[in-house]
Amino acid sequence: MQNIFCIFLFSIMQYSSGTSLSSLSLDVTSLQNYYRNGGSPVELFNFIYDRIVEDNKTFPSVWIHLQSREEALESIKHLQGVNPHDLPLYGIPFSVKDNIDVDGMPTTAACSAYKFYPEASANVVARLQDAGAICIGKTNLDQFATGLNGTRSPYGPCISPFNQQYISGGSSSGSAVSVALHQVSFSIGTDTGGSGRIPASLNNVVGLKPTVGSLSSRGLVPCCPSIDCPSVFALSISDASLVASAMFSNDSLDPSLREDVGRARFSPDSHSSIKKVFVPNDKLLNFFGNHQGENMYRNFLLNLNDSDLEVVAFDFEPFLEAGKLLFDGPFLADRYASIGLFLEENQNDVLDSTFNIVSQSKRWSAHDVFAALEQVKELKAYARHLLGRDGIFAFPTVAPLYTITQLLDDPIALNTNIGYYSYFANVLDLSALSVPLDFHENGMPFGITLMGRAFADAALSGFAQSSLSIGNSNLGLNRN
Amino acid sequence: MQNIFCIFLFSIMQYSSGTSLSSLSLDVTSLQNYYRNGGSPVELFNFIYDRIVEDNKTFPSVWIHLQSREEALESIKHLQGVNPHDLPLYGIPFSVKDNIDVDGMPTTAACSAYKFYPEASANVVARLQDAGAICIGKTNLDQFATGLNGTRSPYGPCISPFNQQYISGGSSSGSAVSVALHQVSFSIGTDTGGSGRIPASLNNVVGLKPTVGSLSSRGLVPCCPSIDCPSVFALSISDASLVASAMFSNDSLDPSLREDVGRARFSPDSHSSIKKVFVPNDKLLNFFGNHQGENMYRNFLLNLNDSDLEVVAFDFEPFLEAGKLLFDGPFLADRYASIGLFLEENQNDVLDSTFNIVSQSKRWSAHDVFAALEQVKELKAYARHLLGRDGIFAFPTVAPLYTITQLLDDPIALNTNIGYYSYFANVLDLSALSVPLDFHENGMPFGITLMGRAFADAALSGFAQSSLSIGNSNLGLNRN
Repeated sequence: MQNIFCIFLFSIMQYSSGTSLSSLSLDVTSLQNYYRNGGSPVELFNFIYDRIVEDNKTFPSVWIHLQSREEALESIKHLQGVNPHDLPLYGIPFSVKDNIDVDGMPTTAACSAYKFYPEASANVVARLQDAGAICIGKTNLDQFATGLNGTRSPYGPCISPFNQQYISGGSSSGSAVSVALHQVSFSIGTDTGGSGRIPASLNNVVGLKPTVGSLSSRGLVPCCPSIDCPSVFALSISDASLVASAMFSNDSLDPSLREDVGRARFSPDSHSSIKKVFVPNDKLLNFFGNHQGENMYRNFLLNLNDSDLEVVAFDFEPFLEAGKLLFDGPFLADRYASIGLFLEENQNDVLDSTFNIVSQSKRWSAHDVFAALEQVKELKAYARHLLGRDGIFAFPTVAPLYTITQLLDDPIALNTNIGYYSYFANVLDLSALSVPLDFHENGMPFGITLMGRAFADAALSGFAQSSLSIGNSNLGLNRN
Repeated sequence: MQNIFCIFLFSIMQYSSGTSLSSLSLDVTSLQNYYRNGGSPVELFNFIYDRIVEDNKTFPSVWIHLQSREEALESIKHLQGVNPHDLPLYGIPFSVKDNIDVDGMPTTAACSAYKFYPEASANVVARLQDAGAICIGKTNLDQFATGLNGTRSPYGPCISPFNQQYISGGSSSGSAVSVALHQVSFSIGTDTGGSGRIPASLNNVVGLKPTVGSLSSRGLVPCCPSIDCPSVFALSISDASLVASAMFSNDSLDPSLREDVGRARFSPDSHSSIKKVFVPNDKLLNFFGNHQGENMYRNFLLNLNDSDLEVVAFDFEPFLEAGKLLFDGPFLADRYASIGLFLEENQNDVLDSTFNIVSQSKRWSAHDVFAALEQVKELKAYARHLLGRDGIFAFPTVAPLYTITQLLDDPIALNTNIGYYSYFANVLDLSALSVPLDFHENGMPFGITLMGRAFADAALSGFAQSSLSIGNSNLGLNRN
């Protein structure tokens, strides 16, 4: 009772300095300025909740668990009396994909039968909370992060804010949409085969897919734990880099971190040494009928060619082989090892698509897995040899544009097409950054993904900012 | 005809400066001095061949393929006119375990049905040859490197030069014995679960087991390719380090090299930062009845305690778990992926032990492998957390002493005992160095193994040299 009274008083006091927030972008820099100029967390969070209540009428499938307004206001109380300069993410609201643990909120992985209350926040979430960021809820996803389209959830398909006929992409669908709608400043997703990039591209936000093992995956519901990683959706490249830096920890006891995690860097490196940009040769460049997307990508390459960069076509076939190991190969057994028994014991409570995909893993034997790991070594060597010290890859993040109806009618093949340029990244130990590039005539965004060697995260961000001048402003949905 | 005449002339000319070589140690430094003082390669190689011919009467199972004297003399012809200072391994004789390719010699992996003539030398062998070293032949091993004892070969059990009742250890049995007998200066072996350390310890020579993926394993017959590596047997720590340095290459196209191979260092780092030495706590310290070995190990630890080093007992159980994954767990499927089909198609031509061990792999499924890989991540984190930045492990290299008769009577259980302190090293991504410590009363040597984090190779060598003052002199069998 006393608590509620305090919140009330705090609210009244802060509201008195209130001005209209509807024109405020939720990117971190804008919110930092807001707070440093005396803006009130309570006012901001009330504004956000008003927005979400309104948005939920049109986009009812973004959140699986949203804190109540009262809970959210309670959760920002500890900011009272703290100087906004003293916490790098003071009062910054964020959402978390619902396959990542947040203390006090249920984890479902978009499967109510799986629901549990975790004992603690995932390591990366705890780091963000330590930095002053405020998690307001858990977002929708393709069940158990199995999918790249955003329709595979019993909590409903996640609709694109840009064209309501279209998919939002997945599996981190709700994460990307909550950022695109400026309901939060950033979101933490996960990425195994593209889940941190595909929905970023389809929602006009930045998707940072860090080097696997550079950020902790403790407290993530495993999908393919050998190559899972957390990812960041944000309203600018610098926001994504700032958030990734805040998520970083170097804990030798954390098995999800690689031995050389000390090499991780996320702050954009503006002194780019990148001279070559590798792109798939025409033979395997596939847009699945999306001619506008193809034109946007080709124009992007033409612009690259006009700079001092060398655009080099390479044989993309080995990358497709690497991807296939993940979505239709022995790596499916990694998913079975994680959730196979649960799926078998709860078949009536899981989606057919999830069950069927993971069950496929039984086609492969133990020695097939080791043979695949040897093949991966060969494929990694191919990629790193191409890149050398001064190269990156540039792909369309997602080539085809699909409506929700199309996906529901043909859920497997179309999902595979979506991952054409994304599946292989983690298998090949590449860092990746998806940045918005342009829009289709139907309003849907189009993005490109830069990929580099392991631990090239800072180089990719710096290159995108300084050499490409993209991904810096007006991201997400324009709400003005 | 012309060639033979040239060799003859060359031989006569060189022989003229001949002095007795029988007192010459074959360590690299001694041979470098020999050459730099005008010693003749022909004289040296003739001396070596005389020795081998004599030794073969007592130790007939060291070599699977030995170049003829004429071939060896032909192979040193290219040294004529070269200044011994210009090649780091000028005229240094070495042997190669017969599961590693050497151009012009057959590879058998101790299975004549498997025999083939490789198109090229293994990468590490080629680097050594480039440095002026001369490979004279291929040494015996436990078939397909499956074993740690040296009796599992159709080419005969490899007898210890120190006590002919005893095993030489394996799988790189012939490699270690050829070095111990001063038939060659060093030998290249392989190490998956201890094959580069066990026979080093039982033959009073240094066994350098590098960080997996720091030296190329291209051209090695795969055993468990996910954790195989080449290894070095040598007559001093500095020799082993020099040889490993010469074997190094940084080729981005080589899939066996890890992405961060540029971190590899082998020259002994004398500026040791090592302050803590971790040893198994008494509960799991096991010498399998070898009380003399136990006393030597405990005295070694007492001496450590007298220095500024902190000796810390740790829970060894997770290391035993890691080892079990290799010799009795899902990693057996890595062996099946490599040679399983060959073994099944040639069952009559392979040893029962080889066949039975590899066939066991079918007990595990694809998802068991991924579960094991997750377990390995946990175990690696345990090891690296213990070590921190200033720790190493110190184990007996091999605790029990077994005779050839004992091994032939009980080949599986005793082999497992031999690997008690070795199986886990590569699974846990540890670097390792086995150094001779002392002798049992029956003449058999006793060694210890230092282990450190990945890429701690130079630190281990430096620590052994400077802080322990072991592994520097009078190694192998004293032939004077």
